[in-house]
Amino acid sequence: MTKTWIYRFDQLADAEKHAGGTWDDVRRLLGGKGANLADMTRLGIPVPPGFTVTTEACLAYLAEGDGLPDTMVAQVRDALASVEQMTDRVFGGSERPLLVSCRSGAKFSMPGMMDTVLNIGLNDETAEGLIRETGDERFVYDSYRRLVQMFGTVVLGLRDELFEHVLADARTRQGLDTDAQLPAVVLHEIVERFKGIAGRFPEDPFEQLRMAIEAVFTSWRGKRAVDYRKAAGISHDLGTAVNVQTMVFGNLGARSVTGVAMSRSGATGAPGLEGDFLVNAQGEDVVSGTRATTSLDSLEQAFPEIHAELTSVARRLEGHYRDMQDIEFTVEEGKLWLLQTRDGKRTAQAAVRIAVDMVHEGLIAREDAVLRVEPAQVDFFLHPQLSMPSRRAAVSEQRLLGRGLNVSPGAAVGVVAFDPDLAERWTGEGRTVILVRPETKPDDVHGMLAAEGIVTSRGGRTSHAALVARQFGKPAVVGVGELDIDLVRRRASVGATLIEEGDWLSIDGTTGEIFEGQLDTVVPDITDRWLSTLLGWADDFRRLRIRANADYPADAERARSYGAEGIGLCRTEHMFFETERLPIVRRMIMSDATAERRAALDELLPLQRDDFLGLFRAMKGRPVVIRLLDPPLHEFLPQHEELSDRVTDAKIRLRVAASLEDIDELLARLSEDQTLRDRVDALREANPMLGLRGVRLAMRYPEIAQMQARAVFEAACDAVDEGVDPRPEIMVPLTSHAEELRRVRALVEKEARRVLEERTAEVDYQIGTMIETPRAALIAGQLAKDAEFFSFGTNDLTQTTFAISRDDAEAGFLVEYLASGILAHNPFATIDTDGVGVLIDMATRRGRDARAGLEIGVCGEHGGDPTSIAWCHEHGLDYVSCSPYRVPIARLAAGQAALDAAG
Amino acid sequence: MTKTWIYRFDQLADAEKHAGGTWDDVRRLLGGKGANLADMTRLGIPVPPGFTVTTEACLAYLAEGDGLPDTMVAQVRDALASVEQMTDRVFGGSERPLLVSCRSGAKFSMPGMMDTVLNIGLNDETAEGLIRETGDERFVYDSYRRLVQMFGTVVLGLRDELFEHVLADARTRQGLDTDAQLPAVVLHEIVERFKGIAGRFPEDPFEQLRMAIEAVFTSWRGKRAVDYRKAAGISHDLGTAVNVQTMVFGNLGARSVTGVAMSRSGATGAPGLEGDFLVNAQGEDVVSGTRATTSLDSLEQAFPEIHAELTSVARRLEGHYRDMQDIEFTVEEGKLWLLQTRDGKRTAQAAVRIAVDMVHEGLIAREDAVLRVEPAQVDFFLHPQLSMPSRRAAVSEQRLLGRGLNVSPGAAVGVVAFDPDLAERWTGEGRTVILVRPETKPDDVHGMLAAEGIVTSRGGRTSHAALVARQFGKPAVVGVGELDIDLVRRRASVGATLIEEGDWLSIDGTTGEIFEGQLDTVVPDITDRWLSTLLGWADDFRRLRIRANADYPADAERARSYGAEGIGLCRTEHMFFETERLPIVRRMIMSDATAERRAALDELLPLQRDDFLGLFRAMKGRPVVIRLLDPPLHEFLPQHEELSDRVTDAKIRLRVAASLEDIDELLARLSEDQTLRDRVDALREANPMLGLRGVRLAMRYPEIAQMQARAVFEAACDAVDEGVDPRPEIMVPLTSHAEELRRVRALVEKEARRVLEERTAEVDYQIGTMIETPRAALIAGQLAKDAEFFSFGTNDLTQTTFAISRDDAEAGFLVEYLASGILAHNPFATIDTDGVGVLIDMATRRGRDARAGLEIGVCGEHGGDPTSIAWCHEHGLDYVSCSPYRVPIARLAAGQAALDAAG
Repeated sequence: MTKTWIYRFDQLADAEKHAGGTWDDVRRLLGGKGANLADMTRLGIPVPPGFTVTTEACLAYLAEGDGLPDTMVAQVRDALASVEQMTDRVFGGSERPLLVSCRSGAKFSMPGMMDTVLNIGLNDETAEGLIRETGDERFVYDSYRRLVQMFGTVVLGLRDELFEHVLADARTRQGLDTDAQLPAVVLHEIVERFKGIAGRFPEDPFEQLRMAIEAVFTSWRGKRAVDYRKAAGISHDLGTAVNVQTMVFGNLGARSVTGVAMSRSGATGAPGLEGDFLVNAQGEDVVSGTRATTSLDSLEQAFPEIHAELTSVARRLEGHYRDMQDIEFTVEEGKLWLLQTRDGKRTAQAAVRIAVDMVHEGLIAREDAVLRVEPAQVDFFLHPQLSMPSRRAAVSEQRLLGRGLNVSPGAAVGVVAFDPDLAERWTGEGRTVILVRPETKPDDVHGMLAAEGIVTSRGGRTSHAALVARQFGKPAVVGVGELDIDLVRRRASVGATLIEEGDWLSIDGTTGEIFEGQLDTVVPDITDRWLSTLLGWADDFRRLRIRANADYPADAERARSYGAEGIGLCRTEHMFFETERLPIVRRMIMSDATAERRAALDELLPLQRDDFLGLFRAMKGRPVVIRLLDPPLHEFLPQHEELSDRVTDAKIRLRVAASLEDIDELLARLSEDQTLRDRVDALREANPMLGLRGVRLAMRYPEIAQMQARAVFEAACDAVDEGVDPRPEIMVPLTSHAEELRRVRALVEKEARRVLEERTAEVDYQIGTMIETPRAALIAGQLAKDAEFFSFGTNDLTQTTFAISRDDAEAGFLVEYLASGILAHNPFATIDTDGVGVLIDMATRRGRDARAGLEIGVCGEHGGDPTSIAWCHEHGLDYVSCSPYRVPIARLAAGQAALDAAG
Repeated sequence: MTKTWIYRFDQLADAEKHAGGTWDDVRRLLGGKGANLADMTRLGIPVPPGFTVTTEACLAYLAEGDGLPDTMVAQVRDALASVEQMTDRVFGGSERPLLVSCRSGAKFSMPGMMDTVLNIGLNDETAEGLIRETGDERFVYDSYRRLVQMFGTVVLGLRDELFEHVLADARTRQGLDTDAQLPAVVLHEIVERFKGIAGRFPEDPFEQLRMAIEAVFTSWRGKRAVDYRKAAGISHDLGTAVNVQTMVFGNLGARSVTGVAMSRSGATGAPGLEGDFLVNAQGEDVVSGTRATTSLDSLEQAFPEIHAELTSVARRLEGHYRDMQDIEFTVEEGKLWLLQTRDGKRTAQAAVRIAVDMVHEGLIAREDAVLRVEPAQVDFFLHPQLSMPSRRAAVSEQRLLGRGLNVSPGAAVGVVAFDPDLAERWTGEGRTVILVRPETKPDDVHGMLAAEGIVTSRGGRTSHAALVARQFGKPAVVGVGELDIDLVRRRASVGATLIEEGDWLSIDGTTGEIFEGQLDTVVPDITDRWLSTLLGWADDFRRLRIRANADYPADAERARSYGAEGIGLCRTEHMFFETERLPIVRRMIMSDATAERRAALDELLPLQRDDFLGLFRAMKGRPVVIRLLDPPLHEFLPQHEELSDRVTDAKIRLRVAASLEDIDELLARLSEDQTLRDRVDALREANPMLGLRGVRLAMRYPEIAQMQARAVFEAACDAVDEGVDPRPEIMVPLTSHAEELRRVRALVEKEARRVLEERTAEVDYQIGTMIETPRAALIAGQLAKDAEFFSFGTNDLTQTTFAISRDDAEAGFLVEYLASGILAHNPFATIDTDGVGVLIDMATRRGRDARAGLEIGVCGEHGGDPTSIAWCHEHGLDYVSCSPYRVPIARLAAGQAALDAAG
């Protein structure tokens, strides 16, 4: 029995039988395009008839190496005969000639493969027949010269310039601008000249087709295709199929149309066809934008039956593919043909609405809807975005200044300010400001909060600027290397473009782009009812709880409104940086005597208490994890170099001081600055990341931890008095030894007893520890004895596990590592499963062995990363905590993780 | 049957039967002192007769709470009767009265317990009898007043001042200087006055004894004893025994003697008795030094039989206890009595000789000898030491200036230099120098090498100063907090003491002390034949191989002479710091273009090649582990602040420049310094420890690793030409990802192939990696695929596992952690078994699973620490590598580890 090498589009059942059970097998046999065309044919969708030469034929041809075997040739002829019958045309016929296209179609779409030859079947004789049939000589010679040109370049491998040169020459001679204006007679001439260039163009239509098929097969072994498969990890044994399909023409007069359609709005997801069409035109005219297209709405008036049919086809396709479809169609003299359908591209907004609507329409299940929306698409709802037209215009006007790291999504438009004080002042005056700095420090936070958006020329994905921006949902682009900032002259430059203070700047934190000038923005809607519905479904499926990292009551409120189930991390040091508190904090640090330090702490106590009370109120009975003071104390002091400069400056002024009063004042300032500098000197560390911070501060200055514990419990008592149920969880940072935790625990418990006795109140609280050093993970069993909860500080844990300082590396060698493929992904963005993940898993098991019911969460940046969230779900963690702005994303990701794990 | 509460010293067999099988049980029953006295008695050593009231009696007494039970009282009387019989004396008799001492004796020696009451049995009547017997009234009343005084203070709990006041009064009235001069008649009076003070002094000798026994028992529950046991973790259930022993007197005339003897020299270990004695004196006279003692050598002339007997007794005791003995003896009227024996204290030198000699004498096995010497004692042989008399004198003259960390052992004496250039110059002029700096940097190394010893006021156990000093065997004391160094005025102070440049200073790196002035030193001998023998035995027993960390051929030679079996770590960067190379290295770093960098590297190539050739020559076929460049590049550049100062200085000079030439020169210097400062700025990192160093340098600047690989293989080829068998092992530092190792491996292999082809040579080499980040340990299985060996860099691994920067912490919070007991020991000195050890163990197992025969060593500081060496042995590592100066220590420790594990 002869092998079947060919399946017509209407022979899908046979192909399925041959290929094996699954759709994947069919795609393997027929290629993606062929399978799809056959699928539509079976659905009764009008597809121009044709057939697929299988991938098996390709492999056999390549194995043989001796031209297209006779059995294949015979089967091509048979299939063509069937197509002739279906179309009532004759391939190579002088009347009603059949023209076909020939396209490659591998299982996976793949650049480097021979693409398309249209209009196969034309020669001098059939051309005359077609002219007779259509009465359109120009159309026929244009089609003919296209065939020869495509055949020459694609099948014979000639350079396209050879052909284009002839066209250009003809245009010049005729004094014309475009090919479309060339008259039939000239096109006829051109066909002849093209044939001369091509040399081997066969007049025999079947020879045209045979050579085209062989060219497709051979291109499977072409260098570009092989390289691509190597890089993409696609097997070289798949082979490619070839699709031969009847040509249809949308440019055969007033009853011919070509167009594209989405089955619903790709912009909003609203139901109803959306698209463009052109009467008497070809597909490429719609796509290339050379002619102004008409909205599909007009199609209903112009061709009501066609519109009705198209609507019905789109609905059938949606029903079949269970997704919104992007369709290419042609109407040839009143007859609708579908040339392609595929899942349509859509905005984040549309993705959400379509997924939810399709559930309501019964097309898909709630699980499908939850799995179908990318978590990153949810982010879109939380931030203003640059409007697409405005961005497009800016790019074409070359106002795109550069790209940096897209560390905090959303668009911001404002005037440039180079220092935080100015940013604050201008914002106060009602201007919107973009703060532009080489990098940011805790001192800059007031300016960052005032600004609309933040740009830095240095720093990485977890630099201070990035962390703060993400925390407060400020759009930010960091590490824009091209940006050269001159703080002295108060201006910046990108190449030749100069940016003065006060100039308008537009930034896109979603893409990392910065633009000169004032672009338009659009504001999506987080309260979007489709999004709420979708996230509600995700909540039903997920097992992981979602908490937020929030330091202020306002953050906590926002986190709640986004669905956070508690606060997973309150960084108490942020409260210390506030303008009115910093002087007290500095006094505390500068004092050598414990008594003096206590006095300063006494001033901070009521302030911290109010902070905590606000958090308890916002969280209404949900847990609030409060981390004891963590950063090295020198972070609260001015920088050493700044102080040195001040000292030098004062000395120079002394030399030219005019009066004794001036000298006295200068001396006083000098002495103060020198004292401050000495203290900064004493606190200076070679590697502050590994220095006197976290629990080590509590060991050296127990009075600080004591004040914070008191503030927590006094606030809790106040909350109880108000009828709010406070759920404080006190967290010890940077633990690396069990004894550290034991001592802090004793200290906190003692202070708790004191306060609760003073107030005769009862408050449930927990004490736990961060796991952010490798040693803490290794001794998790010991730590669990004194910890009711663990929270993995995956930022620092990643730093110490890799021995990488993120602030230095993310704008430095880590970028190179990612670029050169040493690292497949940034471990500060997505959990490093081989290293950090092993530690987390070990700590989780050892911790739970030592204490049943130990509560375990993640509060690093990874808590908001969907891939990491899936990992946390798989590894049995109880919750993730992330920035309030990432809570919706985390809810969706956690729902998807649960669904993926289930099945 | 009545319980036995009392065992006479000659009833050891009965006590053993009662106590149970082991010597420990006996000590538990009789206390340490009682067990020992009974043991000597059984050996036939002349011990004054007596008996022990058991710990069980103590516990029963305390439980009863009702005075000494009748059965005990009866048994005391019986035992006393036996002693009377043995001594032919009568307790409380008017003729030949028996006097006894009463001493506590718990299982463990313990402060806070009632100590000793001597001369029990004296009262007015027995005193008369003793006067009649001895004819020495003064002796008897002096003994009597001592009894009353001791009884009053120890048993009755009176303050000693009450008694001393009477003695002082008597001396004044007699116009005498010492109690020894008080005549009998006065002493008689004093006895009466003492009795008046004591109030309840019992005349009945048995009552004296009963009350003394009860006082001992009761003191077990005294506050000081209870506190001590709590702190030392000794059980409160042990109880104490009481020893009652016949008094003997060395002050009964010309045939009476008292003395102390060592069975061999405690200073040198040479055979033969060594000690001091006094004729007609009491034990405390020998110890207190109130009378000039005579060397035991004279005892041989004066009392040949006694000397012979003492020698024989000492030999018997050595034979029994299998160790050198420290003996207290008394000769009473020609009769030798032994009062105590215990293992003698000895110098390191003596410890080694005694252990080896005893093997040769058949007293102990070679295993015993190896186990008996502390590894730290071996260190002694490697460094000059302060002579004891000289140190003692300096302390008493208050010339001890302060204490720091004893980071590199040995003594050094020299004149103070405050900068490395001066240190080098003065050393060149033949002066010996102590370099004194706040801290040291790589730039200071030439001065450190020139100096005799190093002192810093800052820095920890692994500061630059400590590491370099240890590496080169320079005595060093770092972190001397009291030392205030003023580099501008070129002087230092400790409190009120001023140290000018050029003043003499003596330092003891073994103890961490620094002294004003010029102390004497003594130089032990490493080639000591006893030490060689002992280390040879240790080599026979050990399984761990010992390598040395050596960067220069001279270090390697020394390491070999100390017994190193290879180089475990050559830090190639040290070669870069040498004076003539640093400018080339800086040029390499300053160049932006790869070509320029290559040119500088081409200059370094022949220098590195010679370094490596020297190492191969020194190691003669033994492995040489060469680590690729590790430190951050900014370490090779001047410090930022120094450059800033230079820039400021140049600017100021510009203002007052006198000529155009000056200005030109200043401008040139300014420009150069500014360029340098910009580069330092660009290289600056927030946490250099976690920054661009180790393998990350090889990823960014592959040409550096390539040059180093070429230097290694060219040197190896040169070695082959010379007939030396080179064994290079190239080590990649700071790996945290498998891909890093894979790429460096490919680079090194490629360069190796090139060189070996150029030279048509064959060289066996290995490529391996340091494991010094937690992640490297976690992915050891992946790393082993591209590593033929692992070497744990335990310094950095400890830093990253704990998240502790050692340079900051060892002089900072780590000190407090150790002081306050949060950490039991410094993890940078001894391996942290719960954290770092778990990672090492995990990496070892995963590495060997992935590659059988993977060679695994340790090259951090821990490689020279005996406790850590034992851990490495237990955990199956192949070798440890340490500073050349610690190789002998490591050999002994490794031998001990193997014996401990076996036994």
